[in-house]
Amino acid sequence: MRILDDIHTSADIKELNSEQLHTLCDELRAFEIDSISRTGGHLASNLGTVELTLAIHRVYDSARDRIIFDVGHQSYTHKIITGRKEAFPTLRQYGGLSGFPKPYESDDDAFIAGHASNSVSVALGMARARTLLGADYDVLALIGDGALTGGLAYEGLANAAASGEPMVIVLNDNNMSISENVGGMAQLLQTLRIKPGYINFKKWFRSVSRHTRCVYDFVHKTKEWLKARILPNNVFGEMGLYYLGPVDGHNLEQLENALRLARDMEKPVLLHVLTKKGKGCSYAEAHPDKYHGVGCYDPVSGELAPVGISFSDKAGEYLCRLAESDPRVVVITAAMTGGTGTECFAAKYPKRFFDTGIAEGNAVSMSAGMAKQGLLPVFAVYSSFLQRSYDMLIHDVSLLGLHVVLCVDRAGLVGSDGETHHGVFDISYLGSVPGMTVLCPASFRELHDMLEHALHSVSGPVAVRYPRGGEGRYTDSSMSEETVLREGKDLTIVCYGTMVNEALDAADTLALEGYSAEIVKLGAAFPNAYDLSIASAMKTGRLIVPEEVCRAGCIGSAILMRAAEKGCEIPQVRLLNLGEGIVTHGTVAQLRRDFGIDAAAIARTAAEICGRETEAE
Amino acid sequence: MRILDDIHTSADIKELNSEQLHTLCDELRAFEIDSISRTGGHLASNLGTVELTLAIHRVYDSARDRIIFDVGHQSYTHKIITGRKEAFPTLRQYGGLSGFPKPYESDDDAFIAGHASNSVSVALGMARARTLLGADYDVLALIGDGALTGGLAYEGLANAAASGEPMVIVLNDNNMSISENVGGMAQLLQTLRIKPGYINFKKWFRSVSRHTRCVYDFVHKTKEWLKARILPNNVFGEMGLYYLGPVDGHNLEQLENALRLARDMEKPVLLHVLTKKGKGCSYAEAHPDKYHGVGCYDPVSGELAPVGISFSDKAGEYLCRLAESDPRVVVITAAMTGGTGTECFAAKYPKRFFDTGIAEGNAVSMSAGMAKQGLLPVFAVYSSFLQRSYDMLIHDVSLLGLHVVLCVDRAGLVGSDGETHHGVFDISYLGSVPGMTVLCPASFRELHDMLEHALHSVSGPVAVRYPRGGEGRYTDSSMSEETVLREGKDLTIVCYGTMVNEALDAADTLALEGYSAEIVKLGAAFPNAYDLSIASAMKTGRLIVPEEVCRAGCIGSAILMRAAEKGCEIPQVRLLNLGEGIVTHGTVAQLRRDFGIDAAAIARTAAEICGRETEAE
Repeated sequence: MRILDDIHTSADIKELNSEQLHTLCDELRAFEIDSISRTGGHLASNLGTVELTLAIHRVYDSARDRIIFDVGHQSYTHKIITGRKEAFPTLRQYGGLSGFPKPYESDDDAFIAGHASNSVSVALGMARARTLLGADYDVLALIGDGALTGGLAYEGLANAAASGEPMVIVLNDNNMSISENVGGMAQLLQTLRIKPGYINFKKWFRSVSRHTRCVYDFVHKTKEWLKARILPNNVFGEMGLYYLGPVDGHNLEQLENALRLARDMEKPVLLHVLTKKGKGCSYAEAHPDKYHGVGCYDPVSGELAPVGISFSDKAGEYLCRLAESDPRVVVITAAMTGGTGTECFAAKYPKRFFDTGIAEGNAVSMSAGMAKQGLLPVFAVYSSFLQRSYDMLIHDVSLLGLHVVLCVDRAGLVGSDGETHHGVFDISYLGSVPGMTVLCPASFRELHDMLEHALHSVSGPVAVRYPRGGEGRYTDSSMSEETVLREGKDLTIVCYGTMVNEALDAADTLALEGYSAEIVKLGAAFPNAYDLSIASAMKTGRLIVPEEVCRAGCIGSAILMRAAEKGCEIPQVRLLNLGEGIVTHGTVAQLRRDFGIDAAAIARTAAEICGRETEAE
Repeated sequence: MRILDDIHTSADIKELNSEQLHTLCDELRAFEIDSISRTGGHLASNLGTVELTLAIHRVYDSARDRIIFDVGHQSYTHKIITGRKEAFPTLRQYGGLSGFPKPYESDDDAFIAGHASNSVSVALGMARARTLLGADYDVLALIGDGALTGGLAYEGLANAAASGEPMVIVLNDNNMSISENVGGMAQLLQTLRIKPGYINFKKWFRSVSRHTRCVYDFVHKTKEWLKARILPNNVFGEMGLYYLGPVDGHNLEQLENALRLARDMEKPVLLHVLTKKGKGCSYAEAHPDKYHGVGCYDPVSGELAPVGISFSDKAGEYLCRLAESDPRVVVITAAMTGGTGTECFAAKYPKRFFDTGIAEGNAVSMSAGMAKQGLLPVFAVYSSFLQRSYDMLIHDVSLLGLHVVLCVDRAGLVGSDGETHHGVFDISYLGSVPGMTVLCPASFRELHDMLEHALHSVSGPVAVRYPRGGEGRYTDSSMSEETVLREGKDLTIVCYGTMVNEALDAADTLALEGYSAEIVKLGAAFPNAYDLSIASAMKTGRLIVPEEVCRAGCIGSAILMRAAEKGCEIPQVRLLNLGEGIVTHGTVAQLRRDFGIDAAAIARTAAEICGRETEAE
């Protein structure tokens, strides 16, 4: 019988003795390595935070206190010990557990997480609510050193420091964000880690923690001495945060004592914890980057299941090729070298490759400066994370019409990462940026041709948007704004990107039912006069626009606006998209089916409007 | 004859001797105080940076080197001495000089500015371009302590530090952002200012600067010593920047020497300069906040021309009233207490008022945390600056459906601040945020009623969007999603916000011409089924939707999408909006006229489609 099987809430963790806790850590690691091997998920970061999570649950009550995860992919242990062990095999599956904290899943999940660096701001808001409303709970933010490279984290820290609000910010420092940590903050943390002044911390800490009952008094009375002697004069201290650490993140007793001390100081405290990503699993420890976010793997050897070639892989490959003949081409990533397929570029052109850390705003503004002075910057970024740069795209890039190229990866539905990661707003927000060109490759060949076009033939800002995963049945290339891919007479399907595959399948189905669908493929979402699309719709009298984006600002609405301006009236219109709500996690196929944008749904809708019309005639 | 009259380029500044420079400073201040009194503009910040600007032009050549202003409202002296003195009386006027740096205006303006905190990132991009392309110019960013409260600045500093790129970041520290400086960085700067270790800096500096020829050698050889002894161990140093300062920002000789030293270090250097806002003008020195951005005033007494009551004033007043009966109401601002009219709230409810500094992202994420725990947060922010929070609105607020209220001030055209400040994207970007309600008050009474409604009757995120300035002829209140304000039979005008005044004027004009216009006023932009609007347009057969926003995602497109979904065909449609380009500065009336969205243009368009239809009949 495992100890793990008797753990259902925070309270159960508090009952365990030291030996049981250590056993539980081993059990949790074994459980996670095994379970994630079948569902895929975030392995290395969760293995690194087993002790830290247990220590937090020893000191805090997650149902009452507010524990705010940053990014949140390190919340698996938390989920398992708060009543979700049985459901854990459904992780990231349609209808199953989310891979990130979700308040709708459990009251123990205090907030949503997925995009980095927000935790301190959110925790500060909660701490202020607690104080103003006279409530009685503690607030803790758990932020990684990677998330600390984001400006939002700095804004949160500065405001938390000035607030004086009792709250604990745990800095989970594993010396790497998703790939390698970069920038000034990394250097600062490196300094903290090796500063001789810290060596005595543990010794001091042990002496203090022996007398935990009098800790509060001790801290209170000797605050000034503490600040001057033990608390280092570092950025956190200078901001006004009380800095404690660094603490060994795999020593349960030290962690628990440090958390208790930090909580009882009743100030904004930053507790610096050192952890090892992948801890306790040889292959994950050796290659934490490779085992950050994984698909299925062999739990013993760590051998990863093979994955197909993706648009990301191809983007990296093509950028390498295009950079060969043009020394002005540089590539920028925001801590997503692996995810965006740009490792090859980084290896081949280290001086022309810039990882900004999780700092999408800086990446865009820096690219703007580069473009203004004659470089050809390409910022490779996930659609969902580019939302952070919306203002910089308008202010720094668009107002000067600068030639910045965006490789917008993970555009559309991303699948198992769910609502925080779907790239379903980019058509809407990029469409509002003055002068922005948005190209939508539907195949690898088009990706290549459009990247080349974006680099050498477009002026002003240009985005090349492509999905997670690989290409489908369509493998041709057409650089046209609009291409009639298949002629027909009964209805018009306008599509772009890999949605063209669904359209082709739908047209095949419709053909069997006796309907002839005309397919117009858009190479460019913007700018585009949609003349061919409108002409086709006027000819057939029926228009379907299936899109993997939110309804507001979709291409369907752009076509309607243009048609109205031209005085064209299309009798029957069906805009198929993700609507105005929020899209959960699941496979892309399942989600497309749910939202009625897969081939079957397109065919069904088409048959319906064709049938209805026929009856009316 | 003034020295000022002989200054046309950076080179002319370099020719002057010390006495002439001091005289020039006096002349520049007199010129600015006088000229701005007639045009309005940013007074206090420009008076504070006269010496600093001249010193920069002594050391750098602005036509060749790249000087990046942050925010850029402190660029007047720079403009005056780079060939724009004669044009200065046209400042912020339609067709005249911009109040911010603009590369289209002069090659001496290296980049655009308007939104805070981007300068370091932009400068880093330029420095990297310089190095990669083997070009020969220096790069300098001039950033205020206020802009340093933004996370983007931190991202830029961290990346600049890690880059090792030769560049100088001048921190213009006047101990206040637009209102009062807040947060951890302010505390840090305060510490730097008073640290005893700095007292000897000037003395040391004088001894060094006597031997400028050997400065490079000196610096190079004693770098380690310098780091340990003179360069303080502060946040900038820890990040990897070389910190120099603080330097007296009104001492031309010290400034020039410090800039030369910083430039010649060929590293990323942060030069800390202390300036006084409003320097040399008694009323501006005494009330730098009041004389930050001003309209016309008496140059001798400083007496400001009276301004009418604005939506901002009323928003502040109503929030005070609404907070009285509900202790959960709190107000958040991002360094815009004065601009958003919330001084009264800050004074009345200091514990319920939070100024985050120029940190719109943190303001939204913090509000989300507050809302999750039971407060009723109201974030008062300019439309244009809220663009910085687009991702936080989606990720932190919308995905959990949290009840955060946004007072979106300066929505629509703002006039003389121009392209960086127009609030013309919010309908588009707020419309894409799932579950977002957008209310559009057209009068003060509606502002009150809609704020109350937003606080107490709406669930989920809600924005109340209102323009710069005051109300017009429409002073009623209607809380309906749609109201038929005036009945007619020839055409339908759908409008919202203060555009209703243009619609009413247009309808009056049309009545004289014999056309009867039906006006439908939208109380809510989203969510709205636009049923009345569509029914009216079906009845009249003609629809005009005048809007003070960009074309993408405008309400006109939302109405067309809804009409298509309902199977309604509106024969004649004219969407009047700001199109897909960039809107310059000028009065709102002038800009509306240019874009064909004022009363005269609406009437003209209406007559045109009514007339054409009549001919066709």
